[in-house]
Amino acid sequence: MLVTPRTLSGFRDRLPDEAIAKERLLKKLTLVFESFGFVPIETPHLEYAEILVKQGSDEIQKELYKFQDHGKRDVALRFDQTVPLARFISQYKNEVGLPFKRYVIGNVFRGERAQKGRYREFTQCDFDFIGSKSIACDAEIIQVIYASLITLGINDFIIWLNHRNILNGICKYFGITEEKAIQDTLRIIDKLEKIGAQGVKEELQKTLQLSEKKAEGLLQTTSIKQTQHQEEFFREIAHMKEWNEELKNGIEELENMYALLQDLEMDKDCYRVNFSIARGLGYYTGIVYETTLNRLKSLGSVCSGGRYDNLTKTFSKESLSGVGASIGLDRLLAGLQDLGLLDSKATTARNLIVCTHQDFLPFAYKLAESFRRSLINTEVFPEVTKLKKQLSYADQKGHEFTIIIGEREFQSKTITLKNMTTGMQLECLSFLKALEIIKS
Amino acid sequence: MLVTPRTLSGFRDRLPDEAIAKERLLKKLTLVFESFGFVPIETPHLEYAEILVKQGSDEIQKELYKFQDHGKRDVALRFDQTVPLARFISQYKNEVGLPFKRYVIGNVFRGERAQKGRYREFTQCDFDFIGSKSIACDAEIIQVIYASLITLGINDFIIWLNHRNILNGICKYFGITEEKAIQDTLRIIDKLEKIGAQGVKEELQKTLQLSEKKAEGLLQTTSIKQTQHQEEFFREIAHMKEWNEELKNGIEELENMYALLQDLEMDKDCYRVNFSIARGLGYYTGIVYETTLNRLKSLGSVCSGGRYDNLTKTFSKESLSGVGASIGLDRLLAGLQDLGLLDSKATTARNLIVCTHQDFLPFAYKLAESFRRSLINTEVFPEVTKLKKQLSYADQKGHEFTIIIGEREFQSKTITLKNMTTGMQLECLSFLKALEIIKS
Repeated sequence: MLVTPRTLSGFRDRLPDEAIAKERLLKKLTLVFESFGFVPIETPHLEYAEILVKQGSDEIQKELYKFQDHGKRDVALRFDQTVPLARFISQYKNEVGLPFKRYVIGNVFRGERAQKGRYREFTQCDFDFIGSKSIACDAEIIQVIYASLITLGINDFIIWLNHRNILNGICKYFGITEEKAIQDTLRIIDKLEKIGAQGVKEELQKTLQLSEKKAEGLLQTTSIKQTQHQEEFFREIAHMKEWNEELKNGIEELENMYALLQDLEMDKDCYRVNFSIARGLGYYTGIVYETTLNRLKSLGSVCSGGRYDNLTKTFSKESLSGVGASIGLDRLLAGLQDLGLLDSKATTARNLIVCTHQDFLPFAYKLAESFRRSLINTEVFPEVTKLKKQLSYADQKGHEFTIIIGEREFQSKTITLKNMTTGMQLECLSFLKALEIIKS
Repeated sequence: MLVTPRTLSGFRDRLPDEAIAKERLLKKLTLVFESFGFVPIETPHLEYAEILVKQGSDEIQKELYKFQDHGKRDVALRFDQTVPLARFISQYKNEVGLPFKRYVIGNVFRGERAQKGRYREFTQCDFDFIGSKSIACDAEIIQVIYASLITLGINDFIIWLNHRNILNGICKYFGITEEKAIQDTLRIIDKLEKIGAQGVKEELQKTLQLSEKKAEGLLQTTSIKQTQHQEEFFREIAHMKEWNEELKNGIEELENMYALLQDLEMDKDCYRVNFSIARGLGYYTGIVYETTLNRLKSLGSVCSGGRYDNLTKTFSKESLSGVGASIGLDRLLAGLQDLGLLDSKATTARNLIVCTHQDFLPFAYKLAESFRRSLINTEVFPEVTKLKKQLSYADQKGHEFTIIIGEREFQSKTITLKNMTTGMQLECLSFLKALEIIKS
């Protein structure tokens, strides 16, 4: 009996055009990460369940792919790249040395309810700076996000910045000081886009027993967003430093960070403070980042992160501080697609060589070798079928040029070159002449 | 209570030096695959168990990581990249078009008994040519193996070639015609290295009830190995084409393949016929490949494969033929290490910039940006600690140059450059002068 070929719900294949686009994108990101000296590491997809379970939120625990292996060990597939990093750095901090800058590109698994655009296996692309509390690290993460997007051809984006101490300070100013109440506040404010200002205000009043005036004040304060020049913005919020120590510290850290970025060739409109960014809730302890594309706001954040001080608390009494961000690769790919910034070819080769007779194949292979030596990716159609069929193969896959070897070309050791975009055909060229045209 | 940070038995992490080496290697291999027009695809790590179970051998079924997911589906982690390819091509053959050339680099999982050098999660690197029976495909696989190894700096290797029909033909000549008996014969011959000629002969006699003379003949015939020039070799074995149709076909296919490779710039000593290569047993139906490094024979084959005609039989009545090979990445990495061909740096950056005072950090970041723009990967030490500590960080990670920013350098906007290999230090250079030295 035949088995129906299919993937699991929430899982998917990538066909060549998408896989090529993803590979190109990862290659560019890797260059950016490495230009800053981030290094790759590798951890297994499968870990002891207890390693992953302890750190995750309740929701993530439910979504964990957990099972018993052949040795009756409780094991699970990783659901993110941060917990494996915490385990890794706890094990090897002496070997790798601190501070430690790592990037990682890999798949993670979450048994979420299947829905459009959400997958149960997806690729995460993280870069983190471990073992230093210097604000220079936080500043560098912004540089990496900036350089990554610019390298991918995106130049219309904003990296939104906030600081956990600013949120704590605002909460404190409005009388909210218990950790649980702060968490609730951040969670409610995070819903602004979803339920609107009125909804947020009502929920703040109900959940936190705030007066309408306080709820209104809290909402207005967390709605502060940098729209003007940096100096002007910091001048305008300077009075908030007087509210309490938390706000003072948070705002000053942002100022110090801005000072580090001051002279760099980065468009200053591309990173802005936004007091409503509350992501990560309990997890983050310092700066937080979110990144939106101006032309695709509905996409949500394509790169988020922040500073955390308790990375290794599950594994070690010694606490290590880290700061990093994660690029949502699938989301970014979808965004680039929508922005028309993805090349959607199904081939990695520029040339396809086709022959009209079996005997010409050795010449075709020899030619292909010569093109490859000139760094032109070249494919040979391995069968001798109707020319039309061979040309339609090039059309389907997206080769730029077809090189046709017929009797005449074979005898004279020349090439007939067809530009698949324009349809123009040049006959009986020398190899060097053809190379010149292809390279131009 | 703290959790002990550790990996599962048979699983492992890669530290930066190894992960960097692997990434470099994969980048080079990707360039080679794509220069031939192979395209990447991606399939999930997790599949319906029935997709994987039907195709695997008994041994692999035992080793499968199989479990029930949240929806009570029987699922399993892939154990190779070939079964997912078979499913993929059965689903999408119309979308992708045939012939289809794909490469894939990804991890697979096998719950084998843990032993030195064998891992339960490992990386496979496959390239396959699906949907064409042309011998030109088989020839191209040899070219890809050859180009891959040369690109990695290995030039002392042999790609061993054999043909399933040659093995069948030899068996037939010695009176072995039943499929089961042929399989047994190949399995026994495969043990030559392990149990020696006498052992093989005895086992052939015992298992297949062969006379000593026949066992001896069988052993001698399968021991034929090409040591001379191609023309000479084929002349010497030409008489075997008379033995039966299978031998005639197998030898002629090898001859046809050699003809295609004849004019290419490949060292002809690097691919040779070897009648003892029996790998894959039931699976392969045509040519088979194995690749050994001359200076590291004990490593075993670093790239193996062959032609198979029943790729999609589990999923479809239509049979598709394919030919391909798989690079044993972990083995190859180990080999390159032993041959001294691996660079073992723990950093991706050439430069480390260090400051003696907090106030110099913005200048350091600006300098780093300038170096990166000149394509020199550059890292800034994010903290201001003792210079000695910062320099030992560069020593530990393997940066080539340290750039020191002290009071003098900061005031004059110059650079002190220390070559970490020679220890030589040049003071107060301009950025351009430093760049020139680093690039030279």
